[in-house]
Amino acid sequence: MELDDLIGGCGEWLRGTGPESDVVISSRIRLARNLTDMTFPPRADERTKEDAANLLREKILELSPVAFMGYVEVQGLSKLDRQFLMERQLISRELADAKGARGVFIGTSESISLMVNEEDHLRLQGLRSGFDLMNCWQEVNHVDDELQTGISFAFSDDFGYLTSCPTNVGTGIRVSVMLHLPALVLTKEIQKVFQAMHKMSIAVRGMYGEGSQALGDFYQISNQTTLGKTEEQIVQRVQHVIPEILGYERDARQELLRKHRARLHDQVSRAQGILGSARQISTEEAMQHLSHVRLGINLELLDNIDLGTVNELVMLIQPAHLQKLRHESLDKPERDAARSALLRDKLRLN
Amino acid sequence: MELDDLIGGCGEWLRGTGPESDVVISSRIRLARNLTDMTFPPRADERTKEDAANLLREKILELSPVAFMGYVEVQGLSKLDRQFLMERQLISRELADAKGARGVFIGTSESISLMVNEEDHLRLQGLRSGFDLMNCWQEVNHVDDELQTGISFAFSDDFGYLTSCPTNVGTGIRVSVMLHLPALVLTKEIQKVFQAMHKMSIAVRGMYGEGSQALGDFYQISNQTTLGKTEEQIVQRVQHVIPEILGYERDARQELLRKHRARLHDQVSRAQGILGSARQISTEEAMQHLSHVRLGINLELLDNIDLGTVNELVMLIQPAHLQKLRHESLDKPERDAARSALLRDKLRLN
Repeated sequence: MELDDLIGGCGEWLRGTGPESDVVISSRIRLARNLTDMTFPPRADERTKEDAANLLREKILELSPVAFMGYVEVQGLSKLDRQFLMERQLISRELADAKGARGVFIGTSESISLMVNEEDHLRLQGLRSGFDLMNCWQEVNHVDDELQTGISFAFSDDFGYLTSCPTNVGTGIRVSVMLHLPALVLTKEIQKVFQAMHKMSIAVRGMYGEGSQALGDFYQISNQTTLGKTEEQIVQRVQHVIPEILGYERDARQELLRKHRARLHDQVSRAQGILGSARQISTEEAMQHLSHVRLGINLELLDNIDLGTVNELVMLIQPAHLQKLRHESLDKPERDAARSALLRDKLRLN
Repeated sequence: MELDDLIGGCGEWLRGTGPESDVVISSRIRLARNLTDMTFPPRADERTKEDAANLLREKILELSPVAFMGYVEVQGLSKLDRQFLMERQLISRELADAKGARGVFIGTSESISLMVNEEDHLRLQGLRSGFDLMNCWQEVNHVDDELQTGISFAFSDDFGYLTSCPTNVGTGIRVSVMLHLPALVLTKEIQKVFQAMHKMSIAVRGMYGEGSQALGDFYQISNQTTLGKTEEQIVQRVQHVIPEILGYERDARQELLRKHRARLHDQVSRAQGILGSARQISTEEAMQHLSHVRLGINLELLDNIDLGTVNELVMLIQPAHLQKLRHESLDKPERDAARSALLRDKLRLN
């Protein structure tokens, strides 16, 4: 497949129409699996990694557990293309930065991706728009079952699925939900919420997972433990915690409307004005304004722009996407100019 | 006359088409005169002030040295109306804040105003668009001559015209030019220019004269001495200094274009975007953005807005003008909202 096939759209999971889409951007579940009788990727030599990749690739094509757009050999990609896949949430930073034979199967509509030779031999990811963990889990579980009809995964009766990192041992599951929490940030209540999450063994991360910074008030909430519970229990646990955070965010939004409506209206309207007029803008600044515009739309303070456009822009303004759109490599000042041109075009104000 | 007659327009002097209007907003000349045999206003009792005002009013109507829209009795005006006249540069802060009988004759097109019982019995002011001191002086001198055919002004052979404040004694003339110096502010060269002016006995003040702050990079440049030279010499001196400042400002603009074109384009475009989208905005912030938009128009970085609109807005966004436009008294948050609505309307972007 050609990566350029992806650039036109932006993944089903970003369409902005899933359940609770005023706060929940997307739901994601990934399983970590490793082949039996093969050294796990972090300790494997080049040859073993190649063997594992070839085996998995062959088996997955044979089993064909879902419809795929194709397989992308990540080791053959430029840095730009690897970043592009990462921005699209199709591969992790680890897979982008790893060495040796590795790749990714991309499902149609980008709702399933199978990473080969990331930290584990196989990382199976399901991605859905809005708060939709149950459907996401059903699909991921189905794909996992299908794969297990033809592939033998490393499993211990004592520990469950074996993984490269002990934090993933057991179910190998990570359940995460990307939330948009602008009101909790504006009211400065976000740290309190995060502390409460932490006590419940729920992790909070930035937009691109582990070690990444929050951009534009977007946060990933996920389970921290994978051992001693079934997959369903872990999915249920995250499923159960999210409505609480949604409640906090919605309360904060209503409080802002009640107490500071004029100021909030000013802030979201200016955000739109700046995005529609700037001539150079960084990813960070653009994300922050897009976050405020998104809040403005959800609170019906802005009515001349739709959520789908904003969600699409959150994707398209990222550095690699911008360069893929332009079909050229751009340095930072060129990207800042190209980003502002794209924003002016989509939010045409002048 | 009714003050509401003024609100529709904005004074010939702000039309933005005078000479050197890329940098010079307006040229202003005022003469200070006092009646013989009457105590000067700062030491006069109520009765004397009334007598002086009545005498001057009668004589001026009789002599009719120019066409007037009418005479406004300032002592009968609300604080809002006094501020309105001050914002229009038709009266000084001193006349607005003074006590007792006082007023102002306003010439048609607002290019001449005669203040009665300000610090001196009579302050005669001429105001013109752009850099136009010579025409302004001719008109002011003509009006002064006409007045002297019927009014006897206090004059000493040793000192010249006598005034309440010794700094005005002699010719009683102040020649001032309102300049727009955004590039000197952006390049941080403005203080150097002001220091050079100071050495040449040229004063630099804010938009509303003595003691006022600079707003939106607008500065008033004027002579400091009025004694020992003829009126023509003083006018010539200011006439001579201004082109030097214009040169500095224009050089700074070209340097910005040459070295930081992209950043400057971004800044002026964002200024327009913010003015067209904000939902509440203070006078200070609006003036600053209008200043940058004005710079953008003059450097042909913005082409969907004209200088006349910006000049008009500089006038109309001021607190008293806003309230006169709305025909109601507004508190600060209401003014900030009304100001943003006016700006959005005139710069319609969304």
